[in-house]
Amino acid sequence: MIIVMNNTATEEQIENVVSRIKKKGLEATISKGIEKTLVGAVGDERLLDPELLQALPGVEQALHIVKPYKIVAREWHKEDSVIDMSGHPIGGKHIQIISGPCSVETTDQMEKSAKAVKAAGVKLMRGGAFKPRTSPYSFQGVGFDGLDMFRKAADNEGLPIVTELLDIRHLDKFLEQKVDVIQIGTRSMQNFELLREVGKVNIPIILKRGMSATISEWLMAAEYIAAGGNHNIIFCERGIRTFETYYRNVLDVTAIPVLKKETHLPVIIDPSHSGGKAWMVAALSRAGIAAGADGLLVEMHPNPCEAWCDADQAINPDELKILMNELSAIAKILGRTISD
Amino acid sequence: MIIVMNNTATEEQIENVVSRIKKKGLEATISKGIEKTLVGAVGDERLLDPELLQALPGVEQALHIVKPYKIVAREWHKEDSVIDMSGHPIGGKHIQIISGPCSVETTDQMEKSAKAVKAAGVKLMRGGAFKPRTSPYSFQGVGFDGLDMFRKAADNEGLPIVTELLDIRHLDKFLEQKVDVIQIGTRSMQNFELLREVGKVNIPIILKRGMSATISEWLMAAEYIAAGGNHNIIFCERGIRTFETYYRNVLDVTAIPVLKKETHLPVIIDPSHSGGKAWMVAALSRAGIAAGADGLLVEMHPNPCEAWCDADQAINPDELKILMNELSAIAKILGRTISD
Amino acid sequence: MIIVMNNTATEEQIENVVSRIKKKGLEATISKGIEKTLVGAVGDERLLDPELLQALPGVEQALHIVKPYKIVAREWHKEDSVIDMSGHPIGGKHIQIISGPCSVETTDQMEKSAKAVKAAGVKLMRGGAFKPRTSPYSFQGVGFDGLDMFRKAADNEGLPIVTELLDIRHLDKFLEQKVDVIQIGTRSMQNFELLREVGKVNIPIILKRGMSATISEWLMAAEYIAAGGNHNIIFCERGIRTFETYYRNVLDVTAIPVLKKETHLPVIIDPSHSGGKAWMVAALSRAGIAAGADGLLVEMHPNPCEAWCDADQAINPDELKILMNELSAIAKILGRTISD
Amino acid sequence: MIIVMNNTATEEQIENVVSRIKKKGLEATISKGIEKTLVGAVGDERLLDPELLQALPGVEQALHIVKPYKIVAREWHKEDSVIDMSGHPIGGKHIQIISGPCSVETTDQMEKSAKAVKAAGVKLMRGGAFKPRTSPYSFQGVGFDGLDMFRKAADNEGLPIVTELLDIRHLDKFLEQKVDVIQIGTRSMQNFELLREVGKVNIPIILKRGMSATISEWLMAAEYIAAGGNHNIIFCERGIRTFETYYRNVLDVTAIPVLKKETHLPVIIDPSHSGGKAWMVAALSRAGIAAGADGLLVEMHPNPCEAWCDADQAINPDELKILMNELSAIAKILGRTISD
Repeated sequence: MIIVMNNTATEEQIENVVSRIKKKGLEATISKGIEKTLVGAVGDERLLDPELLQALPGVEQALHIVKPYKIVAREWHKEDSVIDMSGHPIGGKHIQIISGPCSVETTDQMEKSAKAVKAAGVKLMRGGAFKPRTSPYSFQGVGFDGLDMFRKAADNEGLPIVTELLDIRHLDKFLEQKVDVIQIGTRSMQNFELLREVGKVNIPIILKRGMSATISEWLMAAEYIAAGGNHNIIFCERGIRTFETYYRNVLDVTAIPVLKKETHLPVIIDPSHSGGKAWMVAALSRAGIAAGADGLLVEMHPNPCEAWCDADQAINPDELKILMNELSAIAKILGRTISD
Repeated sequence: MIIVMNNTATEEQIENVVSRIKKKGLEATISKGIEKTLVGAVGDERLLDPELLQALPGVEQALHIVKPYKIVAREWHKEDSVIDMSGHPIGGKHIQIISGPCSVETTDQMEKSAKAVKAAGVKLMRGGAFKPRTSPYSFQGVGFDGLDMFRKAADNEGLPIVTELLDIRHLDKFLEQKVDVIQIGTRSMQNFELLREVGKVNIPIILKRGMSATISEWLMAAEYIAAGGNHNIIFCERGIRTFETYYRNVLDVTAIPVLKKETHLPVIIDPSHSGGKAWMVAALSRAGIAAGADGLLVEMHPNPCEAWCDADQAINPDELKILMNELSAIAKILGRTISD
Repeated sequence: MIIVMNNTATEEQIENVVSRIKKKGLEATISKGIEKTLVGAVGDERLLDPELLQALPGVEQALHIVKPYKIVAREWHKEDSVIDMSGHPIGGKHIQIISGPCSVETTDQMEKSAKAVKAAGVKLMRGGAFKPRTSPYSFQGVGFDGLDMFRKAADNEGLPIVTELLDIRHLDKFLEQKVDVIQIGTRSMQNFELLREVGKVNIPIILKRGMSATISEWLMAAEYIAAGGNHNIIFCERGIRTFETYYRNVLDVTAIPVLKKETHLPVIIDPSHSGGKAWMVAALSRAGIAAGADGLLVEMHPNPCEAWCDADQAINPDELKILMNELSAIAKILGRTISD
Repeated sequence: MIIVMNNTATEEQIENVVSRIKKKGLEATISKGIEKTLVGAVGDERLLDPELLQALPGVEQALHIVKPYKIVAREWHKEDSVIDMSGHPIGGKHIQIISGPCSVETTDQMEKSAKAVKAAGVKLMRGGAFKPRTSPYSFQGVGFDGLDMFRKAADNEGLPIVTELLDIRHLDKFLEQKVDVIQIGTRSMQNFELLREVGKVNIPIILKRGMSATISEWLMAAEYIAAGGNHNIIFCERGIRTFETYYRNVLDVTAIPVLKKETHLPVIIDPSHSGGKAWMVAALSRAGIAAGADGLLVEMHPNPCEAWCDADQAINPDELKILMNELSAIAKILGRTISD
């Protein structure tokens, strides 16, 4: 860490900073420039809180030099991690598409969805039994009955299931139903209690980016899970909140090469929630794979106009098939494979 | 609700929209303009999901005319609500300041804090026993022992306590310790399970704004609490996330007159977390009260340089006293009183 | 336009709104709902200013139904426009890459750049003679001498030139030097005087998006140019400003399908300025073309480490060649061609 | 400047960085930490471009330690600057309110406005003869005739005038009409050619913040003016663009104490454009003055419902009077005076 003293800092103030650093077991170096004095702290930076140092008299700012995340960082784990999702690898050369309806509605809808997912060559199925909704008066999901319907429909087609965990108290039931991949939603990215709990299980976790979370906060949220022992983490970019009102959120494709540089873990995108419109899905999906994403979480409904929630963002089974063909061709250009 | 058809919509598509509206029990009106046809839905709009209508062929957009929130809306409750916080009224003519350290550290620190709070003429005390921290490696709060220390120190000075609830599983212990006001933090504003639980108790809730939540989402989050039966809700603006990097967040003072127009419930601000620097606190506090806020949640530490977290944003006991004098003078100009 | 009256609006207030609408030559319709009354204005909406209506007593909001842009709108011009850039078509099936250094530095640098551009199969060259810089103390561009160097180097390789116009007073000199395509930079997107001037010439204009401009404002800025008679407009998405600090800006790929829906004009992206780092350029370029963009404006420098400005965002000649191959393969999947 | 090398940087790469620094005439220091090596550049940092250094192999980041602005910085000019606006001081203890209509419309409107401004005890008058409008089809201002009307109406009441300069080519006419204070609008904050021109005159300049400009960019824009010789600069915060859609912009009150710390120049706010609604103006005005602003630029119209532009954001003459009383009372608490 580097502590920049302001240009009126006294010797005594500089000494005070030095003594704080030493108290934490790090070494301190002093470097006097023409306008400012810098104090360097050499050692394990994670032991120093920049806020504490910034509160000291004479200090202008305290700058981290070392990244605050460790287990998830590529700096310490050079090769791509390949994560096994119940038999289907993601990461490295392997791209996986995950598709299905936004929410579980009926047995019939789930059966049709599972068949359509399989027919398109997709290997994993998504669906929400519990839905976080802005309004208390909106449809909140079918609940555990929906999870049962989902499990059965997916089992019939041999598809592993991916579903969102909203409430710590639901985790046991999720384990009982052998949920293959647990999704942590955008509103829960900094629900640290929830992160700690899923850090204790041995199931792949899809960690969606908070809708205004920085890359650094997102990596730290993953570090919460990893610190608990579960290193099977998949990042999912789902659009960030900006000033633009034409579309729901802005899919941040730049996050893909950036995460590839910062972490060894897989990165996927959600082209459905980000734009919020079915007619944008193909373009955004292609962009994501072309930018180097390891997969997609894409909404498909057997009959989008009848969907109970997020109706205007789901594509239909035929559109999914066409999309899979385009994506396979793009993956090939990049030397990768889809859905193996 | 108004449904705008695009300029190539067919008669059949218009009829389809009309029939959907009628199926939900509302009436439909058709109005043909020169360029577009509009369909109006007359009745209880909350029964219609705009996304469902937007997914229909020929529809360009669906616009809500009626506000989606009800219990918290001023539209249906014209007078200001005054909420009792263990003997201290907030709302209407009554302004309340809530002060204390960011986190509970030691018995000594809490005793000194409580004395300083009282000495400044402040009537309620804040302090965090559980701290949501970006990094899993940072100090996470003292926990329930901290809550005990807080309760005792506050009782000695006759101060009601305000503290943050992070985890649903802690609620019983909070009730046991007779927490006077429960704070829902910025990261939990859309933790709907948590909102539902605090909707069932009869304790005032301070609902902080999510760091990138719109006014509308914030009002809907309050509606989750209110829908459960607890109408003792206080909104707390704590800074929003923007592109600016000089300060942590931008205190959104415009939210104050806007909430005053939209809801009958009290609105306070947090001048400490928004800017993130002690030297900004007085200016932001005065701005908040001058804009019409009903109170402040302001961090004060008996020895800020030694604080265990957020050290550079807490003011000291002397600064709190000076601030109270300035705020009382501003309140008087607006015909209001502080700390009665 | 629809005017929503608030729920306490009087008959007199409604009548006042109606009379204002009629005064402007439109017809007014009144529709009374259960909670609100709506007034519809039928006719040429562009004659009504929503702000004027919103200022009237009893009015809650005034909503535009018709898009405020006309010449650039796809609604009135269904087919893709193909624009000729001195012999090279862009739009429809035609993708064009425009490459070259950020700024003109020396004759040698421009000659090497032109050769590298040509060798990669790129058909148009970019370069800045005048540079808008945040600091008055930074390098501001070589000026008109640079424009001469650029013209000569490009002519030697038979490449049309693309360069930014910053100052109205430079336009004559640009015409004299036969600049093939004029770029309007992000900081000038709402420099309406400049837009009006380039609306009077008959040269293709690349209109970069303001760094926090909405899609609607961007389309309106193009409408300023089009209203002057110049319909040869190419939109260039170059990253928007958000809360994220890891990269300079967020490339908004969603803008690509959205503009394709809203306008018949071509859309390109700038993968260099958006991310601000050379190592992101290939991923962002592929994402843009995969999302349907009609081209790129990409920085290439014969020796990036020696560049006088934006050194860390330029790719080198070899990287440009590899990129061109990848992009051609992606274009083919979408049934399009590059650089014809 | 500090250059952080990445943890695989070679000796040769470090030497390369050192030699670049020395070539620019600065000294270089090397400091090896456990994980990273740091290179310090001691001397006039403004000679080094961080982008250039970041482009070098082995470099992770280059950090500025010294502020890039100089003339406007408080670091080098400790006392508040007081600027004379044709006899009315602003800065230090002096607060000035500037009021008048958004745009000049008619002689009658300007006369009524001038009388109302004077009657409220306001000492300076604002009004726009040229209006930057998002749409080419909206009212664009009355032009030079409007400037004449404005000058006459203001002269009759002895009020100095404040008006916006949009186009470099208008400057001579502004000087001829003896405009007392020139306003640079939000869309022109980074119109560097315009800034350079107003840097050459000797008239106070109100520099509005770009709607998504950072504090640092804003200070650098002022430095452009100051570098030309004109140090009579007044910053005007007018709301920033965020994700919130309820109001036009978010008035950033935090910018007030921050600018007071960073610069010696006066800071005012525009409570009219930021919120965009007349009913928010009083609350935002009070917040600004309470936060320490040196003044306001506030829209007032003799008959707001009839205003030709921004009709719903202007207050009326009576509201201005009431506001002046409230503001004077707040100023007094802070030991300051209004309108002397």
